[in-house]
Amino acid sequence: MSNIKPSLAKGTRDFSPLEMVKRNYIFDTIKTVFKKYGYAEIQTPSMENLSTLTGKYGDEGDKLIFKILNSGDYLVKVKPELLAQAQSNAMISSISEKALRYDLTVPFARYVVMHQNEISLPFKRFQVQPVWRADRPQKGRYREFYQCDVDVVGSDSLLNEAEFILIYQEALSNLGLKDFTIKINNRKILSGIAEVIGKPELIIDMTVAIDKLDKIGLDGVTKELIERGFTAQDIEKLKPVILLEGNNEQKLDSLKSVLGSSATGLAGIQEIETVFDYVKAMLGSGSGLNPDVELDITLARGLNYYTGCIFEVKTNEVAMGSIGGGGRYDDLTGMFGLKGLTGVGVSFGADRIYDVLYELNLFPESAAAGTKVLISNFDKEAEKYALPILQQLRAAGIAAELYPSSAKLKKQMSYADDKHIPYVMLIGSDEMQSGQLTLKDMQSGQQQKLSAEAIVGLLK
Amino acid sequence: MSNIKPSLAKGTRDFSPLEMVKRNYIFDTIKTVFKKYGYAEIQTPSMENLSTLTGKYGDEGDKLIFKILNSGDYLVKVKPELLAQAQSNAMISSISEKALRYDLTVPFARYVVMHQNEISLPFKRFQVQPVWRADRPQKGRYREFYQCDVDVVGSDSLLNEAEFILIYQEALSNLGLKDFTIKINNRKILSGIAEVIGKPELIIDMTVAIDKLDKIGLDGVTKELIERGFTAQDIEKLKPVILLEGNNEQKLDSLKSVLGSSATGLAGIQEIETVFDYVKAMLGSGSGLNPDVELDITLARGLNYYTGCIFEVKTNEVAMGSIGGGGRYDDLTGMFGLKGLTGVGVSFGADRIYDVLYELNLFPESAAAGTKVLISNFDKEAEKYALPILQQLRAAGIAAELYPSSAKLKKQMSYADDKHIPYVMLIGSDEMQSGQLTLKDMQSGQQQKLSAEAIVGLLK
Repeated sequence: MSNIKPSLAKGTRDFSPLEMVKRNYIFDTIKTVFKKYGYAEIQTPSMENLSTLTGKYGDEGDKLIFKILNSGDYLVKVKPELLAQAQSNAMISSISEKALRYDLTVPFARYVVMHQNEISLPFKRFQVQPVWRADRPQKGRYREFYQCDVDVVGSDSLLNEAEFILIYQEALSNLGLKDFTIKINNRKILSGIAEVIGKPELIIDMTVAIDKLDKIGLDGVTKELIERGFTAQDIEKLKPVILLEGNNEQKLDSLKSVLGSSATGLAGIQEIETVFDYVKAMLGSGSGLNPDVELDITLARGLNYYTGCIFEVKTNEVAMGSIGGGGRYDDLTGMFGLKGLTGVGVSFGADRIYDVLYELNLFPESAAAGTKVLISNFDKEAEKYALPILQQLRAAGIAAELYPSSAKLKKQMSYADDKHIPYVMLIGSDEMQSGQLTLKDMQSGQQQKLSAEAIVGLLK
Repeated sequence: MSNIKPSLAKGTRDFSPLEMVKRNYIFDTIKTVFKKYGYAEIQTPSMENLSTLTGKYGDEGDKLIFKILNSGDYLVKVKPELLAQAQSNAMISSISEKALRYDLTVPFARYVVMHQNEISLPFKRFQVQPVWRADRPQKGRYREFYQCDVDVVGSDSLLNEAEFILIYQEALSNLGLKDFTIKINNRKILSGIAEVIGKPELIIDMTVAIDKLDKIGLDGVTKELIERGFTAQDIEKLKPVILLEGNNEQKLDSLKSVLGSSATGLAGIQEIETVFDYVKAMLGSGSGLNPDVELDITLARGLNYYTGCIFEVKTNEVAMGSIGGGGRYDDLTGMFGLKGLTGVGVSFGADRIYDVLYELNLFPESAAAGTKVLISNFDKEAEKYALPILQQLRAAGIAAELYPSSAKLKKQMSYADDKHIPYVMLIGSDEMQSGQLTLKDMQSGQQQKLSAEAIVGLLK
């Protein structure tokens, strides 16, 4: 064994006990909401056949997929001329047949196709697993990170979209966030606008330019639109869209007049209205949920695959990119030969949510709950006295430790401090004689003498 | 996008919703016990630097490590002569700098060394994550599987060993297992025996041969020992060890006389006795735990790195290999330059435990708990009526779904069946008029009419 100074692989992280407890708190809170809405968990393998992943994320995406080297003599299938010319790219499929999961959507599509005879449609699943991307690491961007996806496949009902709004609302509220906006748009509205102007091919250029209104103003947007191939006449038609204002109803009304001649555009408006109606009807029961949903015509996230509603969630309490998003894709499983299955889903950006909660100090005390009480270890006699008490505590469900050697008390106390253990039980000769054990509250520093039973009762 | 028929990478598995619930039940049960004993969770990255892993698992192990191909032009660092000669093995370190985690122990050692200034010793951690091995897949052996490890580093107290016995006992009992044996041995006893015979280099041959007593009898073992280099005189000395019988106390007494001249051997016996004393003292409180611990001198698991106690757990209810094991290793972090840190730990074989619970039908009903009630969807009017009730159920913490379209009732019922949903709420025109909704118990088939409030109360 070589004696090397160890380091982490670039772009990866260890999670310490305190971080794990906080991360689990986020995942558990979100999963609880998923389950309440009828979603069930699945997991897929970390490695997929390379052919399953290749071509699904565009050329740039393909480069970012981590490939796994074949075992054994991996060069044996490489054509000699490729080897001779050191053709890295052309050789890949000969030396690597597996790759690491790049997202949870493509494996989910594969899962649905492979298990189509066992699953009952609509199939509502959630999945919380790491994914890997060979991105250049930078602050907040890692090569291994968790995705937290919830999707339903096989149902075109807009009830699903409405429920995702409520899922966001409930999960993020339960995490303690108070001010966040769920943005909604619809691919058909964007298509409608591009159609009305007669430039469907410029749909992405259009949304990118309009998105900058806040930063560069109407003149800036106009300039950019002209650079991107729109005419002055186009821009005149676009103006009501660029300057779309008011509440959601007012925005929808303005859009209706702009899109009057586009069946697609009107269908998009109708979908959004139906989603809003569902949300309103569900909240009739006064459940206390009151989501801040905002129609945002510039939302173009994932435009190349979404076909209906598009979602994005932003917190207004901290400067941070989106903390979630998703949408409907009409042909989820077509890439694996199963046509006509529509899907819709959203995801939660767990790492960013972690940073938001951390900055706002929203992690509850309980999200640091480890060992509740440490029993001190003065000497062999005290240790022996402590052993049955230790098991008594555990039998009552209390997380407890006995310091495993009779080290200096200061060391034992600082162990308790470092581990955020709230109570230390001190057992010396006085305590053994009287049966009244000293319980120290590590936060207040206060001590009291109690029987073992009383302590179990107190800590339970 | 190519239109391929998808398949799983060889040796990997999908986990369906029902499997996930069962797997989570196992992991949650075990983790709850770990926490009660003061262990805290950490996670390490799936990929480590290849240099961190190479050389830690022997030559065979090195071959089974999955290597990740470098991104971009991965051939650029390869020496031309290696490429020309297609030297697969010699090229690896030039084209791959990262690899997938092979176990949880080496990453844990790396973690301890890298975080030594933040952690407080003794450091008690558990870790439940997948590992990957390029083994030939076969029944019950996968290329991706979870390990479930609990270790403490920086404490030589045998209290830790005793607590692992109780952790096994408690976790496996909580999972419903009734008859299992926790086997214990000590490397120092084995060293002592080999020392007494004067053949310390044959320690592994000796244990391998003795282990076969049940199958091949004393004559068979004798023959094998001679083949492996022992003399008739050696075997005479070994006889009391080979034929070791009785309860643990009797076995320890026999060993004491055989090992009288070996300080190492006697130290091993002393360690086992101390562990037994700890267990006995802790159980004084009558916690109901009564572990079946058996001294087994043939237990040689991981002999090349364990230095003290060795553990292995077997169920006696099903024919199955070991469902857990571990031991003490005196120099866990030495491979990364941090000397003198002793560690001890055990692990649970979660996949095998799954198979055991499955075969014994020990998964509780609650380990299938998904959606509790499905609301039927007759038509638009009934749907609208149902929406606030749906949210009322969820607000009460009840997992509920509304079928998302007005499909045929039969289809909706079979959806509930497939998903193991125990109740269906039927809302038709009668129900809407009277406010008395029909609740069908899917198991008994019985129906009753109740108000929405009463149903919420009933299902809560």
